[in-house]
Amino acid sequence: MTTPRKRMAVLSPVAWRTPPRQYGAWETVASNITEGLVARGWDVTLFASRDSVTRAHLHAVVDKGYEEDSAVEPKVAEYLHISEAFEHAAEFDLIHSHCDFMALTYSRLVRTPVLTTIHGFSSPQIMTVYQKYRDGYFVSISDSDRVAGLNYLATVYNGIDLSLYPLQESPGDELIFLGRIHPDKGVHLAIEVARLSGWPLLIAGIIQDKTYFREQVEPDLDHRRIRYIGPVGVPGKNELFARARALLHLNTIPERFGLVLAEANAAGVPVIAMDLGSCREVIEDGRTGFLVNSVEEAAQALQRLREIDRSACRKRVQQCFSIDTMVEAYERVYDTIFDLEAKRRS
Amino acid sequence: MTTPRKRMAVLSPVAWRTPPRQYGAWETVASNITEGLVARGWDVTLFASRDSVTRAHLHAVVDKGYEEDSAVEPKVAEYLHISEAFEHAAEFDLIHSHCDFMALTYSRLVRTPVLTTIHGFSSPQIMTVYQKYRDGYFVSISDSDRVAGLNYLATVYNGIDLSLYPLQESPGDELIFLGRIHPDKGVHLAIEVARLSGWPLLIAGIIQDKTYFREQVEPDLDHRRIRYIGPVGVPGKNELFARARALLHLNTIPERFGLVLAEANAAGVPVIAMDLGSCREVIEDGRTGFLVNSVEEAAQALQRLREIDRSACRKRVQQCFSIDTMVEAYERVYDTIFDLEAKRRS
Repeated sequence: MTTPRKRMAVLSPVAWRTPPRQYGAWETVASNITEGLVARGWDVTLFASRDSVTRAHLHAVVDKGYEEDSAVEPKVAEYLHISEAFEHAAEFDLIHSHCDFMALTYSRLVRTPVLTTIHGFSSPQIMTVYQKYRDGYFVSISDSDRVAGLNYLATVYNGIDLSLYPLQESPGDELIFLGRIHPDKGVHLAIEVARLSGWPLLIAGIIQDKTYFREQVEPDLDHRRIRYIGPVGVPGKNELFARARALLHLNTIPERFGLVLAEANAAGVPVIAMDLGSCREVIEDGRTGFLVNSVEEAAQALQRLREIDRSACRKRVQQCFSIDTMVEAYERVYDTIFDLEAKRRS
Repeated sequence: MTTPRKRMAVLSPVAWRTPPRQYGAWETVASNITEGLVARGWDVTLFASRDSVTRAHLHAVVDKGYEEDSAVEPKVAEYLHISEAFEHAAEFDLIHSHCDFMALTYSRLVRTPVLTTIHGFSSPQIMTVYQKYRDGYFVSISDSDRVAGLNYLATVYNGIDLSLYPLQESPGDELIFLGRIHPDKGVHLAIEVARLSGWPLLIAGIIQDKTYFREQVEPDLDHRRIRYIGPVGVPGKNELFARARALLHLNTIPERFGLVLAEANAAGVPVIAMDLGSCREVIEDGRTGFLVNSVEEAAQALQRLREIDRSACRKRVQQCFSIDTMVEAYERVYDTIFDLEAKRRS
């Protein structure tokens, strides 16, 4: 690769620590990019909460993630954190933002180019902001999670640290669900599949939608066949993967990327995923799992799990969704930006 | 006055239209400053919601106030609206912000000086932002609503448009409460005074705290002696003032300014106010109303209302709380800033 010693700022969100202790996909990816860049010789400053852990220079004005400490007011933390990075813009050759539309609103006030990785469009209203700043530099995290009109330079798939998720050589006996407890993630559909198939199901993740949990998940928990074990960090995930026959990911809206699909595959766990959004980019149908369109198809796919070669699952993650693969792709994007900026100035 | 034809940007909030249809103190003051400056020959651009009404140039990127239209997402609207003003900073000699700590976070990214009128410190957390930007230019709206360490250039009392509130020559028969229905405003204390004194009470204002209304206001409404008539605009306020013997303003936390006190006084209505915060700056005890420390004192003060000369109430508002008085004071502040900036550059 070409241009180390450029000075990079990575602007992570401050909802959670970077990397997060448990849940926090955006911070996970920002962390993986940061550490990957440092490992490859870049000079990186990470803007993140003060309790973050990094080999880059840490620049922090917010003590803790606002989701982790109720003393931190989200609105204040975000304005303070994001503006701090832009006030230091002149010290960097590029700001790589993971802070959504909010950071875009500062981007025209500095000379430093800003690259935004769009981790998802969280509401229809934010599209106004993206359209205003559509001439900026954008990366999508899957081909499916794109909107028309934005100046996308590339799709760069999220990369995970494979060393965190060792291959589990042999399959376990249970189905697992891993993710936010939210209707979007189809926990209720995973429960239906468990029922239909008669296989036990372990559910883990933060409860993001309390009503949904109370009404559509909790009544089905029997502490035996269908269990909820709360949120889990990396060790907890590995325990789940060791016990997993397959991961059920029956999302009800288009998935934007689906980090957990790659994590499960890294551990050799086949994934049965709804064919919505990015799932068909992350899962190779029939090779690292199965793409389905209904609960019935998911239950049928369970019969075919022996077709999946567990080490092939891991190998595909290594090739497509490793930190190295991701960081190399971002390096190409950065080079494109540096070239464009040099031309603009000349 | 000195420096007309300077190009001024007034940055109003986008919670409500500027000026607001009914409630919206910050937008009211931003509007009064804007129209006052235009009347005195300034070149003013008002950044506000698109449905705003002004004789200045209106610059809008948000269609409606987020409190008035649920399609407007507050977070998106604020980021988009505030950044738009700063992106146009080079077109102005001064940005006069009424957008709290959020606008401060853009202030160091532009060369144009920014004056912030602090309409109130809404939470302890925002103090971090004010302390970071303490060297900026600040105006307090009362001497009492100040914190240590900020670079205050002046206190400028809010000014109201006296033509909106004609003098009601003779007193009415009722007590009135006018303000947000919120424990801070002491609606429950006004009700107690009505009870103690046996005088009828008319309550008007938006219900900001629904639980408070349900538990501490609604049970006392009898549709006869104690009535709630909802939010009111200017015509509704004047009807209230015509029926008012006195305005009860028994705030339970320090008042920051208290626009309604000035409005009532403008109409000749005496004010009985809790001696907390700015009330003793707005009300001249024994001359335009009475400052009290309890419900009992408030009830006693009712016996002394005939001591108040209604036209003296209006005269004091004219002198201290008119738009002209306010705008002249701001002109002095602007001149101070232009002088300081000229020195800084030379």
